[in-house]
Amino acid sequence: MKANRIYNFNPGPAALPLKVLEEIQENFLNFNGTGMSITEISHRSKDFENVINDAAARTKRMLNLDDNYHVLFVQGGASLQFCMIPMNFLADDKSADYVDTGTWSTKAIKEAQIMGKPVQVVASSADKNYSYIPKSINFNDAAVYVHLTSNNTIKGTQWADFPDTKGIPIVCDMSSDMMSRPLDTSKFGLIYAGAQKNIGPAGVCMVIVRNDMLELVPDNIPTMLKYSTYVSKNSLYNTPPCFAVYVVQLVLKWLEETVGGLEKMEAFNQQKAKRLYDFIDLSNFYRATAAPGSRSLMNVTFRLPDEELEKQFVEEALTSGLGGLKGHRSVGGCRASIYNATTLEAVETLVDFMKTFEKKNG
Amino acid sequence: MKANRIYNFNPGPAALPLKVLEEIQENFLNFNGTGMSITEISHRSKDFENVINDAAARTKRMLNLDDNYHVLFVQGGASLQFCMIPMNFLADDKSADYVDTGTWSTKAIKEAQIMGKPVQVVASSADKNYSYIPKSINFNDAAVYVHLTSNNTIKGTQWADFPDTKGIPIVCDMSSDMMSRPLDTSKFGLIYAGAQKNIGPAGVCMVIVRNDMLELVPDNIPTMLKYSTYVSKNSLYNTPPCFAVYVVQLVLKWLEETVGGLEKMEAFNQQKAKRLYDFIDLSNFYRATAAPGSRSLMNVTFRLPDEELEKQFVEEALTSGLGGLKGHRSVGGCRASIYNATTLEAVETLVDFMKTFEKKNG
Repeated sequence: MKANRIYNFNPGPAALPLKVLEEIQENFLNFNGTGMSITEISHRSKDFENVINDAAARTKRMLNLDDNYHVLFVQGGASLQFCMIPMNFLADDKSADYVDTGTWSTKAIKEAQIMGKPVQVVASSADKNYSYIPKSINFNDAAVYVHLTSNNTIKGTQWADFPDTKGIPIVCDMSSDMMSRPLDTSKFGLIYAGAQKNIGPAGVCMVIVRNDMLELVPDNIPTMLKYSTYVSKNSLYNTPPCFAVYVVQLVLKWLEETVGGLEKMEAFNQQKAKRLYDFIDLSNFYRATAAPGSRSLMNVTFRLPDEELEKQFVEEALTSGLGGLKGHRSVGGCRASIYNATTLEAVETLVDFMKTFEKKNG
Repeated sequence: MKANRIYNFNPGPAALPLKVLEEIQENFLNFNGTGMSITEISHRSKDFENVINDAAARTKRMLNLDDNYHVLFVQGGASLQFCMIPMNFLADDKSADYVDTGTWSTKAIKEAQIMGKPVQVVASSADKNYSYIPKSINFNDAAVYVHLTSNNTIKGTQWADFPDTKGIPIVCDMSSDMMSRPLDTSKFGLIYAGAQKNIGPAGVCMVIVRNDMLELVPDNIPTMLKYSTYVSKNSLYNTPPCFAVYVVQLVLKWLEETVGGLEKMEAFNQQKAKRLYDFIDLSNFYRATAAPGSRSLMNVTFRLPDEELEKQFVEEALTSGLGGLKGHRSVGGCRASIYNATTLEAVETLVDFMKTFEKKNG
């Protein structure tokens, strides 16, 4: 670890590749020979167009997306998508299916309901505090789309495989596992991901939309809330969040060129998660909270014997240079978020710390 | 000018204070001793809370805002505000007055109309290609608010003083002159400003809202589009655009501590604009396009004898280290944007270049 840097297990905003941060820093006063910072160049300039187009092109290459799909950059985070999705796709006389795997999917359902949109909650894991991913779901044939949240950062659950929706397009919040593994995108009508976990800083949400979904977009919704605006203007209808898009581009470049693409990224993420879960499962001191088979490769949630020890664990970890290990305030406990940019060295250091802590306090 | 940097007259994203850029660069790998980049720290951390609270506190101090006003940070730019304003404040059985001074105010009107909201255009300068600011406007007593655009970046016009609306709250787009001069805020119910001209990078919009306006906000609008959400959650309902807010904080610190506040900023901005307008008015080669009395201190728009010369002017200027002088693609001509961060040295260098160019081509 570089001097003065810590091992960062934050759930988002989260660790970024050090190589990317160093490149940003080095070029911050003079981007690409323009004599201006990336924060000072015009979004209409060739230099910025190259940035946004390269970010989209790398996304399309790594996910094998054909010209049926558009890669968009939208502000407002995944939370704004919760309302944009029904606003764009769900006419008042139609219906959409939602699966409730907690927190973010619950919010997505709520936003559709605030606008009076007809949504059906076809499955939920609320009965066991959202500790698992529902199986064998009956989707409604008439549903315009099926909404899923691929990974729950708070409960530490993740869809290992996506369900067969019999051709109904899946609309999926992938904020916390986007670009962490290869994906059969043919099932998806729309994918969205706040960048601040796996693909960049806070302030930009990547949206991938399939052409046929755009036919559902009504005329009388505001321009900035219409997916078709972003498609027709290449996400440049108004000034985009230039710096955030630039960081996303650099992270995707790192992913494609340094890591070597999504297969390699997945193998690496599996290795990191296995190291942690295996250690926790063998321990009588730590206890994983998500059900086996539903466990997230991104957010490893665990408990210690009592809350006092959990507090002590988080504090001593930080003193030892391991940050961001506190569980979400809504559930308590501990959580290690190990997104793409988290190194194996960070995970090994965490396991070592956990061993020592157990020895002292177990 | 520092080696490799140019004089940046971009209309937005625009020049930022070099001191601010250098501070960002220096601390980019380790923010405030956290061992993480500002792009990697949690938006729920004390460190980030200090950033967002300091940005709001400096805004309130410099604009003399009392506790009736809330300073919010919203994504989506001013363009998202165009729809949020009528959505939050304009019930279908009420009406609002809009003044059309071109481009952005025209778009604000259009967005209200898309949603079927009842707006009255009470004045317009369309008859003279938006080259002036209308005077002696009759506002409707029943208007819920009056919408104005304080500065038109494209036409180069600016409200020198705001009209007497007889107590009707002004809702004002100040994207391009926010914090460029002192302001009697008592007339305003809401002020909004995309940061990327005077107060920061693209990716965040500052919104200042007065308490009484919040009483108009209906329940059944999406959470992310409700001003009351940002007020009750201190702009932290979801992950905010942390980096952009951080840069805004640093720019406001520069404005308050290095420049010395809004009176000093205004005097300096007047000095820069006067230098340019005086030179242009004395010339028979250059011609200012905005009417005297309506001229912007931020965007000095001017023409040369013909379009060929304008093209040559912009190109040769860039070769001489003066960037961003092309007029907006919708109007042509030339434009020097001289926001807060533009130095007098930059303006003097531009005037010298203009003199030389006239001598060679006049």
